[in-house]
Amino acid sequence: MSHSVTDFTFLQGVKVIDFTQFEAGPSCTESLAWLGADVVKIENPKMGDPGRRLRPNEPDTDPYYFHMFNANKKSVAVNLKSPEGFNLVKDMIRKADVMMENFAPGTIERLGLSYDVVKAINPGIIYAQVKGFGEGSPFEKNLAFDMIAQACGGTFSVTGEMDGPPTRPGVTIGDTGTGMLMAITILGALYKRRETGEGHRLQVAMQDAMLHYMRVNFATQGRTGTAALRGSSKVPGVTNAPMGLYPCAPGGSNDYVYIMTSRANPEHWDRLLTVIERQDLIGDARYLTPADRVEREAEVDEVIAAWTRGQSKFDAMQKVGAAGIPAGAVLDTDELNSDITFEQRGVMQTMVHPVHRPFKMPGWPVRVDGKATRIKASPMLGEHTDQVISDWLGLNGAAIAALKTDGAVG
Amino acid sequence: MSHSVTDFTFLQGVKVIDFTQFEAGPSCTESLAWLGADVVKIENPKMGDPGRRLRPNEPDTDPYYFHMFNANKKSVAVNLKSPEGFNLVKDMIRKADVMMENFAPGTIERLGLSYDVVKAINPGIIYAQVKGFGEGSPFEKNLAFDMIAQACGGTFSVTGEMDGPPTRPGVTIGDTGTGMLMAITILGALYKRRETGEGHRLQVAMQDAMLHYMRVNFATQGRTGTAALRGSSKVPGVTNAPMGLYPCAPGGSNDYVYIMTSRANPEHWDRLLTVIERQDLIGDARYLTPADRVEREAEVDEVIAAWTRGQSKFDAMQKVGAAGIPAGAVLDTDELNSDITFEQRGVMQTMVHPVHRPFKMPGWPVRVDGKATRIKASPMLGEHTDQVISDWLGLNGAAIAALKTDGAVG
Repeated sequence: MSHSVTDFTFLQGVKVIDFTQFEAGPSCTESLAWLGADVVKIENPKMGDPGRRLRPNEPDTDPYYFHMFNANKKSVAVNLKSPEGFNLVKDMIRKADVMMENFAPGTIERLGLSYDVVKAINPGIIYAQVKGFGEGSPFEKNLAFDMIAQACGGTFSVTGEMDGPPTRPGVTIGDTGTGMLMAITILGALYKRRETGEGHRLQVAMQDAMLHYMRVNFATQGRTGTAALRGSSKVPGVTNAPMGLYPCAPGGSNDYVYIMTSRANPEHWDRLLTVIERQDLIGDARYLTPADRVEREAEVDEVIAAWTRGQSKFDAMQKVGAAGIPAGAVLDTDELNSDITFEQRGVMQTMVHPVHRPFKMPGWPVRVDGKATRIKASPMLGEHTDQVISDWLGLNGAAIAALKTDGAVG
Repeated sequence: MSHSVTDFTFLQGVKVIDFTQFEAGPSCTESLAWLGADVVKIENPKMGDPGRRLRPNEPDTDPYYFHMFNANKKSVAVNLKSPEGFNLVKDMIRKADVMMENFAPGTIERLGLSYDVVKAINPGIIYAQVKGFGEGSPFEKNLAFDMIAQACGGTFSVTGEMDGPPTRPGVTIGDTGTGMLMAITILGALYKRRETGEGHRLQVAMQDAMLHYMRVNFATQGRTGTAALRGSSKVPGVTNAPMGLYPCAPGGSNDYVYIMTSRANPEHWDRLLTVIERQDLIGDARYLTPADRVEREAEVDEVIAAWTRGQSKFDAMQKVGAAGIPAGAVLDTDELNSDITFEQRGVMQTMVHPVHRPFKMPGWPVRVDGKATRIKASPMLGEHTDQVISDWLGLNGAAIAALKTDGAVG
């Protein structure tokens, strides 16, 4: 596997001081770490990032969530309430290119690290913030988590059965989806900064970020003038058939294949009929045009399902896909995790950790010159306190020991 | 509104030659355009990007999808099959910092613009490609659209009712989600290139990109050793109650509020009981701990629903949120579109277009120094042919006229 993995160095030398927690912030700074930045989490010495422990008051036996969003980072444990700890962080801010936080509204100000304070210390810093709701929104002071942002950002309203309730998309775009938009903006600011040296304040709200992923639905709204609908596995407003999920053998809860013929490729229908051995229907007037097939969608779907029920989803995907028709098996995390081709390509890699067991997880999926960036361990709480203080600030062992004695760092 | 909108200039001077179509590629280059890059679509003079016309063979009366993913770009219409047109594009590639494409597998090579060819013309170029499946995947030659990538990338498997079929998330993370990961990587490469001048080939597969948004589910898989499940509006594996969607008045299809108490904040439950005027249940042994409430989840949910049914979702969100408990109304595209606070904050803006009617749409949601970047019109096919050829290559009017006479450009 190693031939397909390397260490990306695009952001070599970029220093990120990272106050983020849980996912929306950490997913952002992790992407910078995967591109080679020096990302240092500042954590309280008692518990650290609450994402380390999704079940509070229980031992740290569930590190997988933390691994996911904190690979390739360092951790410095600092007591921000001690004057020495607070001054240490201000010294680090002076050296940093980027600072990021996603605390609840008002918290970073209460910690004494508002934008005005930080800008006065380091005018060239890029100061990035994620909140649930935007400044000026009626809800700007409200707490949010992924589900709240998704509910208020529209994604529930377009997910689920057409006649059923709104449904949570099972992916955390409220968190990671927001983090990615902030990463893009930070990188834009860093690019310009090479020329100008100028710092900026960047702010994104999770609710607002959801609209970015909802844009096909807003296009539908633009065309129809009414709210975009849910459509189960179909895409409401895209009038085309066949398109959707078809049940496969042996009938398990994820044994389905998505098949989609394209309006732009009328030959897809005839080819599909050949694959499913219903050449008798080629040219049949009942199903000739996309409009005909939309009108008889239930019949068309049953023609296809009668074939897919006898196929495994893998066989169905292979056979339909090989005929040049878009097709995809519904894969679950267990099937994806077991598929060795992801490891061979470096898309999944095993995190080797000094304490926790080795853990296979998805890494940064974009390849550079044919290679993926290497996943390194998520940090233990305070693991890099000495190293970072020495590297960033040049303090020696005695000075660091004094800080520890004072309880300023852990 | 104008006070909150400006033109971002982070990528001023960056030239992007953009062969992308539909959404996965265009969403990526659009984010670069919103940050200030000069993004030039290269389109065939007959039809252009097929995303211009989602209903082939019909007049161009549905520009909303195209608007969404092509704001702030320019369009040059070039016939790549004419030798003069092909040479013109090669001259443009020589001037570009970034080239991007998301054609079907094999197409860019057939067009004569493989990475080897482009690198020989411009060794410093960042050459970015989006495909459905990764190089080395068993499906690397297959076509993919958003739904196929999502089915094969796991998102369907974790979306929907627990005992129902897999369900399509209504957001296009297969397309835009992938585009954002490529944008981050392009920007990383651009940052380094200011120092080294080096070009790179960047590749991402839509299936692989889905794993990045599925990581909470892979964390669940890591903990349980089995496939992550669907859970309707709840989050399977996160054992906490109450958490979920509750029905509101007047009972419309999106009249629900998401309410989430946090395990880390035991006071949420008591506060919620106060909001819903069930102080009689504070301290009730049946519902004392999160574990108790999970065990009696149906009862707990009914206690809350009995109150929410008498509230509008807006009132419920306001009252529960004001008590410091995360809460979010399920909003649909019509409600979001009508909410003037998005325009006031520059999150939604009206695209003014020379041909199509003004159209309010979401823009880049991240603010820089308190301002959003301005949405400019999506380009008409070939609108900037003369301007870009003149700006990038210095050709004069006579030379451009000759190219038009030859049919090389449109």
